[in-house]
Amino acid sequence: MKVHGEHRRTIWVHPDRESVVQIIDQRDLPHRFVVEDLSTVEEVCAAIREMHVRGAGLIGAAAGYGMYIAAATAPDDVDLVRHLEASGDRLKATRPTAVNLAWAVDRQLTAVRAAGSREQGRRAARETADAIADEDAEFCRRIGEHGVRLIEEIGARKGGEAVNVLTHCNAGWLAFVDHGSATAPIYAAFDRGIDVHVWVDETRPRNQGARLTAWELGQHGVPHTVIPDNAGGHLMQHGLVDLVITGTDRTTVTGDVANKIGTYLKALAARDNDVPFYVALPSSTFDWEIEDGVRAIPIEQRGDEEVRFARGWLGDRIQEVRLTPPDSPTANYAFDVTPRRLITGLITERGICRADRESVLELFPERRS
Amino acid sequence: MKVHGEHRRTIWVHPDRESVVQIIDQRDLPHRFVVEDLSTVEEVCAAIREMHVRGAGLIGAAAGYGMYIAAATAPDDVDLVRHLEASGDRLKATRPTAVNLAWAVDRQLTAVRAAGSREQGRRAARETADAIADEDAEFCRRIGEHGVRLIEEIGARKGGEAVNVLTHCNAGWLAFVDHGSATAPIYAAFDRGIDVHVWVDETRPRNQGARLTAWELGQHGVPHTVIPDNAGGHLMQHGLVDLVITGTDRTTVTGDVANKIGTYLKALAARDNDVPFYVALPSSTFDWEIEDGVRAIPIEQRGDEEVRFARGWLGDRIQEVRLTPPDSPTANYAFDVTPRRLITGLITERGICRADRESVLELFPERRS
Repeated sequence: MKVHGEHRRTIWVHPDRESVVQIIDQRDLPHRFVVEDLSTVEEVCAAIREMHVRGAGLIGAAAGYGMYIAAATAPDDVDLVRHLEASGDRLKATRPTAVNLAWAVDRQLTAVRAAGSREQGRRAARETADAIADEDAEFCRRIGEHGVRLIEEIGARKGGEAVNVLTHCNAGWLAFVDHGSATAPIYAAFDRGIDVHVWVDETRPRNQGARLTAWELGQHGVPHTVIPDNAGGHLMQHGLVDLVITGTDRTTVTGDVANKIGTYLKALAARDNDVPFYVALPSSTFDWEIEDGVRAIPIEQRGDEEVRFARGWLGDRIQEVRLTPPDSPTANYAFDVTPRRLITGLITERGICRADRESVLELFPERRS
Repeated sequence: MKVHGEHRRTIWVHPDRESVVQIIDQRDLPHRFVVEDLSTVEEVCAAIREMHVRGAGLIGAAAGYGMYIAAATAPDDVDLVRHLEASGDRLKATRPTAVNLAWAVDRQLTAVRAAGSREQGRRAARETADAIADEDAEFCRRIGEHGVRLIEEIGARKGGEAVNVLTHCNAGWLAFVDHGSATAPIYAAFDRGIDVHVWVDETRPRNQGARLTAWELGQHGVPHTVIPDNAGGHLMQHGLVDLVITGTDRTTVTGDVANKIGTYLKALAARDNDVPFYVALPSSTFDWEIEDGVRAIPIEQRGDEEVRFARGWLGDRIQEVRLTPPDSPTANYAFDVTPRRLITGLITERGICRADRESVLELFPERRS
């Protein structure tokens, strides 16, 4: 989507230096827009580990390009496949729970192993990295094509009045290669000239909404308003939200959705006020094994400094201010699980389905066992 | 309750200087503990207007003591009642929507008008100020006496295991003269040796939970954990909350509760997980006229800088860091309304009742029209 008026992806090959990859360093957004050059596998590992890039789709793409850099910079006297296997291990270790990471690394290894020569192997690594990124962008684009119909219908019903969409956290293009998941229908609507306005949950404690979603919507020109996480219920109660769309970190085939902490509260408010609640996801986010998301999906607890401090812009730099008494303990659960009964539908790259096994498997029949 | 091991109220007459009143300046909590001397009506007005003191009960007590200062410092050559009427007008104008403010001023005027002499008038003003503060503390103490039974019952059922109470915002003793409303049952339980632990919602955007509730619980020694506002639903889903108690800014006789933004979301989560949801209030908080709280209670919108910035401790001072992109609009609704159907009961100074007109009027029969 657009940054400073120009179309951007979150990751791309340097226009002049073939073995260098560039990313947007997301740590400093929205305060500073920094493009970072990645020239070595170690730099890619650091960028993933230290969250210069984050989000399932983008992490996968970064791992793909990390393997490409490994292939492009491999010394001529080492075995290319062995070299890539070692690089892949390092990439996989950066964020062990990110499934897209391992998937991208393994896809690269398969491609390079199938190549006939070192030169073909290098070309295969580049083609595979581009393919991973292109597919991610294309799947998100299709999510937008399917989801935009929901916004169009509401817009038509409201006679052209603005459609108000609430979203939580950042399931935007910054979390993928382009378009995003939850934001894809919004960008598609905006680009078609539909009057759309987004309520952006700030999403404490890491403020991905206030920092990232607000920034990317603003850069693309989409009208939006940042609100505290506490506000969504009141807005829905007063008819100020027409539709909720969130992303997801893991969705069971039965339709339960693990997503950023606080998603469940918004789903409860949506049900209480008859507001449709949709979850947008590329199918790589499905967990085909787990039956009961609330019981079975493990919820990561993160460091307490995110709750104790707020990070933002002061003067000419990013600073952290302490919010709590020094002796007060804090807890920081990263995700919660929204049960399927609260979810109106899932927006996937193949279309929209209900949040239940039968509907999901109708879209993905190859997953029937 | 206790501060640095000593019992404190939020407002008191200076031990050595009879016409000086002291308060805890709450703006700097939890980072600095500052006791402020108030010697003139103008200083009391500034303390209320600029929120050195806040909370319905404490604002009423501050207005009472403001009138006492006016009486104690009135020049001998002016009419005492006229002087107090003028002072009362200034106090009432500091926060026009705070009902306790006008109520305390008018009670003082009635007392002073009934006095036989200037000296009796001054004495009446002191007695009335003390009475307003004492009654506030006593009503909160009784709320604690009634509410503690809920915690005792849960504790007994759990065989002495810790009772987990979740609260939102600060309805603690800092908002009153002592004990608090939502916190009164918690302090009563703790002081009786019941194992109680409090989940403290940080309560964006002003962070009254992270700043004030955490501080006062910590000072009194009550085990607690500060959590982002997003976390409560997950905790309830996993059996980690036994009871929710919040305060209220206005409660309709029919049982609808206007309270800090986000309260409604916690009430929804409590119902979805069969967690009892109680609201604690002195009866001065009842609105005896309004029928439908969701439709009829006006919701104040506050300045957007509270959403755009976070305020906290950095180095040796309080600083504000910007969280959002400079161009992103924000919205800041201060309260929401929790419909009576989500409320298990109301804890008042006269006992606990259901959140409906008949039950409220059984406790307050003098309000039957």
